Order: sequence, then C-alpha cells, then structure tokens
Amino acid sequence: MDCIFCKIVEGSLPSKKVYECDQVVAFEDIQPKAPVHVLIIPKQHIPTMNDVEGEEQFQLIAKIHEVAQVVAQKLGIADSGYRLVNNCGKDSGQIVFHIHYHLLGGESLGDLVGPKA
Amino acid sequence: MDCIFCKIVEGSLPSKKVYECDQVVAFEDIQPKAPVHVLIIPKQHIPTMNDVEGEEQFQLIAKIHEVAQVVAQKLGIADSGYRLVNNCGKDSGQIVFHIHYHLLGGESLGDLVGPKA
Repeated sequence: MDCIFCKIVEGSLPSKKVYECDQVVAFEDIQPKAPVHVLIIPKQHIPTMNDVEGEEQFQLIAKIHEVAQVVAQKLGIADSGYRLVNNCGKDSGQIVFHIHYHLLGGESLGDLVGPKA
Repeated sequence: MDCIFCKIVEGSLPSKKVYECDQVVAFEDIQPKAPVHVLIIPKQHIPTMNDVEGEEQFQLIAKIHEVAQVVAQKLGIADSGYRLVNNCGKDSGQIVFHIHYHLLGGESLGDLVGPKA
C-alpha cells in the first residue's frame, strides 16, 4: 500500500501523534494552517468521503468526531473554538487519498474557504 | 426555543430545502461562499460539536455524513469534489448555535482557513 497515512498508522513514517486508539490516529499536520492543526484519520484505508459505506464505516466517522472532542480538549481549544474540515476530491484540495479530518484552532480562523487561485 | 435553525426545521422560517428525513434537514445557505453551499443539520437541537454526547447523538453525526453524500450526488458535486466543515465556538466563526455542517463545492475552494481579520 503506497499511502503515506497508512505508513503513519503502521509507524513506518514518523509523525507527532497526539492520540491513538484501535480505530483512529491523530497527528500534527506538517504544514500547519493554524496554531493547532491536527489530522484525524481512521486506521482503515478509505480514500474519500464518497467511499464511506456501510454501518461500520459510518460508525468510524462518528468515532473520529469523538476523538476530535478529546483532542480539542487535550490541546486546549475546546472552549476557544475549532473547525473540523473534511476535503473530498479535486475541488476541495484533497491531496492524500486516505480520508482525514483537519482539526484547526488556536486563533480566529477566518472564512470557510480561502482566496480563489 | 429561539433558534433560527429549529424554526427552519419546524417550517416557521422559510428555507430552500434540498433534503429532509426524520432526523436531518439540508438547505441552501443564504450567504453562499461557493456555487454550492448547503447547511446540513440534525432536527434535534444540539448547540455545538462540544455538546454531542451519547451513542444516539454520535449516530446522528454519522447520519449527517450519509446525507452529505446524498446531497453532493444530487447537486452534482460528488465527482468534482466538496468540503464539509463544522465550526465549533468563537474562534471558528460559528454564528448559529445549532450544530451544522457546511457542504461547499462547485468550484476550486482554496485554503482551509480564510485570510486573518
């Protein structure tokens, strides 16, 4: 499997993990867009939101949100606020095709979308 | 209940609904940030992501993602791509305190966060 997030899950690529359980890993984004910028991913390789199917995988999406709450608390942004973003496909700017949620916080985050290229 | 999204759910405030089931409603954002900008909300009033608790409410979060897939397909952005955003609290810019997911698409969406104020 030539997926960099699968390699982070199995530990063959380094990452700064902030949370791990049997189903989910969260680690610092290497190009942070905010003072707190963590990626939360399922250990299971699912390419995009379009590919999520079946009760078990949707359960995993719910689990990722539980982890988001825990990580936001741990990193001190639960009260100040945070943004959770899932990018799916080309127009969104998704780069790694292993589903991931961006957890952003630590400052006022501005608009939902960036300036147009 | 003085919540504008609860009023949209019950129909006492107008909205352009694009999806409705027993648990979830999706409707067009009145100040769209992209060609497609839909808000997906649970009918149940939950103020923010921090307030989601218990199996039933996390199930609702999963359900919202099922609806996102359906709406993205229906509005023709499943293949071109889309962004799903949940804003929680002050730093995120959350304005209405009834949990909602922004579904954005229809053009290249730019960065995860807007320009700083």
